[in-house]
Amino acid sequence: MLDKDVSDYLQSHRDQHLSALSDLLGIPSLANLDDGNCEKCADWLAKYLGNAGMETQILSTSGKPCVVAKYHTSDNLPTVLIYGHYDVQPPDPLDLWASPPFEATVRNGNLYARGANDDKGQLFAHIMAVEAWLQTHGKLPVNVTLLLEGEEEIGSPTIERFIVEHKELLAADAAVISDSEFFAPGVPSITYALRGIAYVELKVTGAEADCHSGLHGGALANPINALAKIIAAMHDDNGHVTIPGFYDDVLPTSDAEREAWTALPFDEIAYAAEHGVKTLAGGEQDRSLFERLWSRPTLDCNGITGGFTGQGIKTIIPSEASTKVTMRLTNDQKPGKIAEGFKQFVAQHTPPGVTVTVTVNPGANPVLLKTDTPEMQAACHALTEAFGNEVAMTRCGASIPITEVIQRIMGLDAILMGFGLPDDNLHAPNEKFSLEQLWLGSQASAAFLQIMAQQASTAK
Amino acid sequence: MLDKDVSDYLQSHRDQHLSALSDLLGIPSLANLDDGNCEKCADWLAKYLGNAGMETQILSTSGKPCVVAKYHTSDNLPTVLIYGHYDVQPPDPLDLWASPPFEATVRNGNLYARGANDDKGQLFAHIMAVEAWLQTHGKLPVNVTLLLEGEEEIGSPTIERFIVEHKELLAADAAVISDSEFFAPGVPSITYALRGIAYVELKVTGAEADCHSGLHGGALANPINALAKIIAAMHDDNGHVTIPGFYDDVLPTSDAEREAWTALPFDEIAYAAEHGVKTLAGGEQDRSLFERLWSRPTLDCNGITGGFTGQGIKTIIPSEASTKVTMRLTNDQKPGKIAEGFKQFVAQHTPPGVTVTVTVNPGANPVLLKTDTPEMQAACHALTEAFGNEVAMTRCGASIPITEVIQRIMGLDAILMGFGLPDDNLHAPNEKFSLEQLWLGSQASAAFLQIMAQQASTAK
Repeated sequence: MLDKDVSDYLQSHRDQHLSALSDLLGIPSLANLDDGNCEKCADWLAKYLGNAGMETQILSTSGKPCVVAKYHTSDNLPTVLIYGHYDVQPPDPLDLWASPPFEATVRNGNLYARGANDDKGQLFAHIMAVEAWLQTHGKLPVNVTLLLEGEEEIGSPTIERFIVEHKELLAADAAVISDSEFFAPGVPSITYALRGIAYVELKVTGAEADCHSGLHGGALANPINALAKIIAAMHDDNGHVTIPGFYDDVLPTSDAEREAWTALPFDEIAYAAEHGVKTLAGGEQDRSLFERLWSRPTLDCNGITGGFTGQGIKTIIPSEASTKVTMRLTNDQKPGKIAEGFKQFVAQHTPPGVTVTVTVNPGANPVLLKTDTPEMQAACHALTEAFGNEVAMTRCGASIPITEVIQRIMGLDAILMGFGLPDDNLHAPNEKFSLEQLWLGSQASAAFLQIMAQQASTAK
Repeated sequence: MLDKDVSDYLQSHRDQHLSALSDLLGIPSLANLDDGNCEKCADWLAKYLGNAGMETQILSTSGKPCVVAKYHTSDNLPTVLIYGHYDVQPPDPLDLWASPPFEATVRNGNLYARGANDDKGQLFAHIMAVEAWLQTHGKLPVNVTLLLEGEEEIGSPTIERFIVEHKELLAADAAVISDSEFFAPGVPSITYALRGIAYVELKVTGAEADCHSGLHGGALANPINALAKIIAAMHDDNGHVTIPGFYDDVLPTSDAEREAWTALPFDEIAYAAEHGVKTLAGGEQDRSLFERLWSRPTLDCNGITGGFTGQGIKTIIPSEASTKVTMRLTNDQKPGKIAEGFKQFVAQHTPPGVTVTVTVNPGANPVLLKTDTPEMQAACHALTEAFGNEVAMTRCGASIPITEVIQRIMGLDAILMGFGLPDDNLHAPNEKFSLEQLWLGSQASAAFLQIMAQQASTAK
């Protein structure tokens, strides 16, 4: 059982913690902007962690800074590295938010704000746990290093170099990342696989300037129509990606996993209804839903623009059109190779009369994590203690680039112990975080540190 | 020869006319906005024409007002109806303009502004002519009615009703529309056919809100990818439109016309180079260029938007994506029937998991005009006198909806006597009007009125 003083502290400081988290959520820390808000956010975190009793530093990268906070209890105790990210997704479309994205608002037991779940709320659950231990016992049960990144939402372009350069500072025996979610409400979950991501932008250019579609229609190629042809060619009618070699490094899903996923409590009809659609027509239509979401790659346009998009009419053949595309990767797919295949495919499918440019952005490798480690057992134990139910072992279709980097560079199979819920509207308007998940998540984090210490003392 | 007093007046008032036209161009009269600028523009025109000596009125429609200015010289003289439109295309993309679109600027003998050619500059050439006759002779050689519309660039949704309702006020023996262009510099041209237009907007909706492309990629259909499939299906690989029945009402181009077009002074390579493209890949690739531009229909996306289009990354499956499409029509194609075929095609090509809505906007019928009328001879004579060269009889791929309305409702085959040049950047950044075309255009207009009077007196 979680130490009573720690538990009581967390219980009695809910107002203060909610207030502090709301302050943190008020900073619009978008990594794709250079407006100083990421730096402001890093300062806020360093100050808060310093006040809580940790030794903190703000370390620069070639992009947004990282916050590193350490507490060393004893050389004889293991060190736990806890990762979070303080940058958030852009809030658009703004008009669909019920309350302003950067004014944290509580409604029906949920905290609404951009970053409420992803990832400020989740990282704050760990900060609350650390603070509770330090304030009640003057020390932590194990050594702890917090690493808070500021560029996760733009693909973590600098984190690998940062980890290489600060390997000693960040050295640990276990790693925890809370940037994932419960499989369902009441089903605490640990994610053991993440998809990777390849991210490209495609621009099609025709005439040098927009031209009158009456005077020139029939002569000049239309970049929007051309872009549509290129995008349309990327999938066949069954939702398979048609880029040659795309599936080369995808491994078959094991029967054991497929069976385990079938046993998960999930209602496809309810899921479709929740999103306002009648059929789940995304992905490869000859595969089961969880294969399509977890163990098979996808290709999605995230945005498209070209020509006149204002109100009313402008009868032009536009000069250019462009789209942003992300491909979610599994198994041994590598973003560089996938992006290269994408470029070749686009070149081969470009109609005459237009030119194309493909920009390749930083990607992330897929990752598969060991599930039989002692720290994984400790995490399961802590989650069950805090939330009262058995832990489900799940995959996740999203990417958390740091996970694979920590595995490859530090040799640690991180524990993806997420406190979010499936309806938290990640990357979407009205992002939220359940306050219950926040309170219980902080208890799970505190319990995890305690159980890690107990494991260490038993091992001696 | 043009009356010397009139000619001298036009010559000596160039500064005043340029200054007045610049004022007119300073009013951002966009018909798709309700910001009062169209009304301001109508007021300006009514005031200017009143000062010039015409009887003017501003008449309301269900949209932007029409300005009607009349001068009645004699019941024994024919009445010429001169049409122009004072609304202009939106100026975007603003950053590609060398000088602000609504600050008329002279560079290298050209007047740069949105509307400089289309259509404020062209209609002002007629106003200058009328003013010159009234100021020098106290009357016009024939009766003149000016009709200045404020909604041409949004498809003239109210002009037909306006003409029906004001048939008596607008009754005329000849109609002139100056909203077209010379085939080439030094080649005065009269356009005897215009393409019609069908204008539709297509919206594809998937999930109720934008969703995380990692968590939901493989489950939820992507509206951008779906829209691309729908658009791509609209053309085959040779540029033919694949909508069933699309070409049903298109008549074959006559051999005589095809031969006449081959004889026109035109350099396809130079035209392509002027637009910065290597090949003219628009339209049906098995047809000649002038067929594709003048006598064959086309389908072009004018704009497309969906998902995240800002800087950087937002990894979403967007909730919706939409495009604006115009189809240029020829011969007996009717916008209503074409739009209906488009709707059916879209319904049949909508992939599962998304819904589509098609909005049909007002269109315009194609028009073919008689070329053997006395007023057409007068116009050719006037143009040759002013510009010094033979007139080329051309078609035009654009639409001027009023032309077909005047033909159908008033029984008049209008004279499309345009003063623009092919490089005037219509509907595009850096729209311009050659000052030489303005000066000579006003002389042509003045000469046309004089020749019409001479024809009338000869006929007696």
